[in-house]
Amino acid sequence: MPSFLPIDADSDFSIHNIPFGVFSTSNDSEKRCATRIGETVIDLRELSRSKAFDAVPGFNASLFEQSTLNDFAGQPLKLRRAVRSHIQALFTTGSEHSLERNKDLLTKASHNASNVQLHLPVRVGDYTDFCASEYHTANAGRLMKVPGPPLPPAWNHLPIGYHGRASSVVVSGTPITRPRGLRPPAPGSTEGPTFGPTKSLDMEYEVAAIVGGQGNELGDSLGTGDVLENVFGLTIMNDWSAREIQGFEMIPLGPFNGKNFGTTVSPWIVTLDALQPFKTSLPRRETVPEMASYLCEADEKPTFDIELDMTVIAAGETEPTHVMHSNLKHLAYSFGQMLAHHTVSGCNIQPGDMLGSGTISGPEPKSLACLLEITERGTKPFKTSGGQERVWLQDGDRVDMTAVARRKVDGENANVGFGVCSGVIKPAKV
Amino acid sequence: MPSFLPIDADSDFSIHNIPFGVFSTSNDSEKRCATRIGETVIDLRELSRSKAFDAVPGFNASLFEQSTLNDFAGQPLKLRRAVRSHIQALFTTGSEHSLERNKDLLTKASHNASNVQLHLPVRVGDYTDFCASEYHTANAGRLMKVPGPPLPPAWNHLPIGYHGRASSVVVSGTPITRPRGLRPPAPGSTEGPTFGPTKSLDMEYEVAAIVGGQGNELGDSLGTGDVLENVFGLTIMNDWSAREIQGFEMIPLGPFNGKNFGTTVSPWIVTLDALQPFKTSLPRRETVPEMASYLCEADEKPTFDIELDMTVIAAGETEPTHVMHSNLKHLAYSFGQMLAHHTVSGCNIQPGDMLGSGTISGPEPKSLACLLEITERGTKPFKTSGGQERVWLQDGDRVDMTAVARRKVDGENANVGFGVCSGVIKPAKV
Repeated sequence: MPSFLPIDADSDFSIHNIPFGVFSTSNDSEKRCATRIGETVIDLRELSRSKAFDAVPGFNASLFEQSTLNDFAGQPLKLRRAVRSHIQALFTTGSEHSLERNKDLLTKASHNASNVQLHLPVRVGDYTDFCASEYHTANAGRLMKVPGPPLPPAWNHLPIGYHGRASSVVVSGTPITRPRGLRPPAPGSTEGPTFGPTKSLDMEYEVAAIVGGQGNELGDSLGTGDVLENVFGLTIMNDWSAREIQGFEMIPLGPFNGKNFGTTVSPWIVTLDALQPFKTSLPRRETVPEMASYLCEADEKPTFDIELDMTVIAAGETEPTHVMHSNLKHLAYSFGQMLAHHTVSGCNIQPGDMLGSGTISGPEPKSLACLLEITERGTKPFKTSGGQERVWLQDGDRVDMTAVARRKVDGENANVGFGVCSGVIKPAKV
Repeated sequence: MPSFLPIDADSDFSIHNIPFGVFSTSNDSEKRCATRIGETVIDLRELSRSKAFDAVPGFNASLFEQSTLNDFAGQPLKLRRAVRSHIQALFTTGSEHSLERNKDLLTKASHNASNVQLHLPVRVGDYTDFCASEYHTANAGRLMKVPGPPLPPAWNHLPIGYHGRASSVVVSGTPITRPRGLRPPAPGSTEGPTFGPTKSLDMEYEVAAIVGGQGNELGDSLGTGDVLENVFGLTIMNDWSAREIQGFEMIPLGPFNGKNFGTTVSPWIVTLDALQPFKTSLPRRETVPEMASYLCEADEKPTFDIELDMTVIAAGETEPTHVMHSNLKHLAYSFGQMLAHHTVSGCNIQPGDMLGSGTISGPEPKSLACLLEITERGTKPFKTSGGQERVWLQDGDRVDMTAVARRKVDGENANVGFGVCSGVIKPAKV
């Protein structure tokens, strides 16, 4: 499947990827749907208007006339899959529908990735955050001093989760303002809490599933096997956290102001179809209870082998400091299980809803996916590449997260990557 | 301010109320904005098209051409206030703009309340639930066996809250399907949790603020004094809860499937302007710490004296069983404080967002506002009017919530009420 577009050997965006996003340009500030191959961002509205999708049965010209991907995400898998395959054909040398010789349309629809502005790819209706890594759940329970055992009793039986804030989900590149709030007194102190900017600002490396298909009506449920139909694709997600604000407020109703000041997602939604070659099994757990029937996975390989990396570019430095290498396959629960658990109550999900995985920490020290764990709640500093010490994020620090699934096809790299999920910390409001 | 429309003496909808809602009729299924006076539902789209609002400076004809009130709620207080005052004038005998003699328009725009279908008045972007009653917080902490003291340490310092599920917010009259989920083993049992329909289905009487005005940009904050500008109005809210599912899942991330299967709101949004005559002070608390500056109320009367009642019509019965009489003034925190707390982190709120008060239990046994408290977590049954025993809700039970602020103007009742927030329990899906 060689494309006639130039694609670097290590590109996240091989012809085997075909992710979906939303962009604008300096010449046309209207937000419109796009895909990306190599360094080329391809305007799907332009292709649609030029009738390039007329060969796809059931394609509706209005789908790529929207400023978000919600309408397209809400299509049946069959149509989403046909559109993606057709895009691959459009940009493949020698295929029936190849655009290789249609220089006019190629010129109109192609933009260099460095010249476009990327936007939030969907309007997020509801955002839910799970806690699917056993490593993170146990570490965070211990470090946040949650009452009871480090691993909550329910965790072994179901993927615990909570409702997050949808309004503050932003796209990669959006600065994050350091939040203010009530910070608890020191243990044993007779003083009250103090108000001010958080002193323990953290990131969490997560992956989010963006809901697609029809979802379910209120009162109905979906099963683990509905994941391909009802998950449009995945993005990287940074669940920024103000640890002392979170710790003070979260018993018994869960995280609130410690999390709701911003959640960053990467701009390209990578479809589950693109990730099928990377399917793998869930990790073997030490003590797994019998799962409730609604949480059983018929699929023996319900998760994905995707390598995850995180760097911090500390304020005043230019060289990134590599702080994490982890893998999606460390999660103990699949996105199918999260989908089934979320809807078993009858709760309705809708296209554009977002399901965060929780922090994807693994078993190795290098696979810890937030500073809470990396620095043992601020007690063990790490050194930045420029020689600074860090326990929490400082103003001006930038966090970059990347994800890629790697394989070769016919000796060529056929990587499926996510691009970058990036955010810089701005000082708190006075 | 006598209206020429017929208004029963005990009506919730005196000319002093003028709430906002969304309705359709059997002749015209398009959802459109409305107000209500007595038993008359008034089509605001029809009034707008007939140029009845042309005298209101800044009025935009598109505001009442929408299927929800979000656009109108998002207008500045000044305009919302001018529109509401103008509606009062339109329906007042002898006023300059009175429609009394415009029989044609009156006929076209008026519907009997029993002949219309009411809909969710706003598209809820995000829904947040607070826990502002000290009585409920302490009772629920004790009865739900939350680790630590019954009143969480943070509660004295801030209005604790969590993010709820927006997609499952429904309007009064929508049936609620009994949710299924994992129910914890009995204490001391060596068995695991079991999957099935909840056996401890509960209601919670709450009042919700619907956000209006411009809200705030991500990174900015609002103060307690912004409440009039940024709260469009109040509705009754029933926060249905499956107690054993909630209890099993909620540590440490808060309520999830125990709550997300449905939240019912009353159809009429009662503006804060209509409630100004009922302003009152917050209750005196035994031990109040010094409040953080952002939570201080400049207003000495930042809450409202509104009487709240709840009845259950048990399955197979016709007579309601009165189970609660409480008052909004029992809440320890004001909606202004909830608004300030929610945004102090920089979290952005938007018109149509919903802020629930938490269960409005008061100090008296009769003012306990959920079955968890009324029946001491299912250990003390109450008798229904038909002689049945109840500890939790059964299939076919109907819960009705009402709210009214009462006063007289010139010897006449000038009540400002909310109508009813009602829901019937349907059996769980098999």
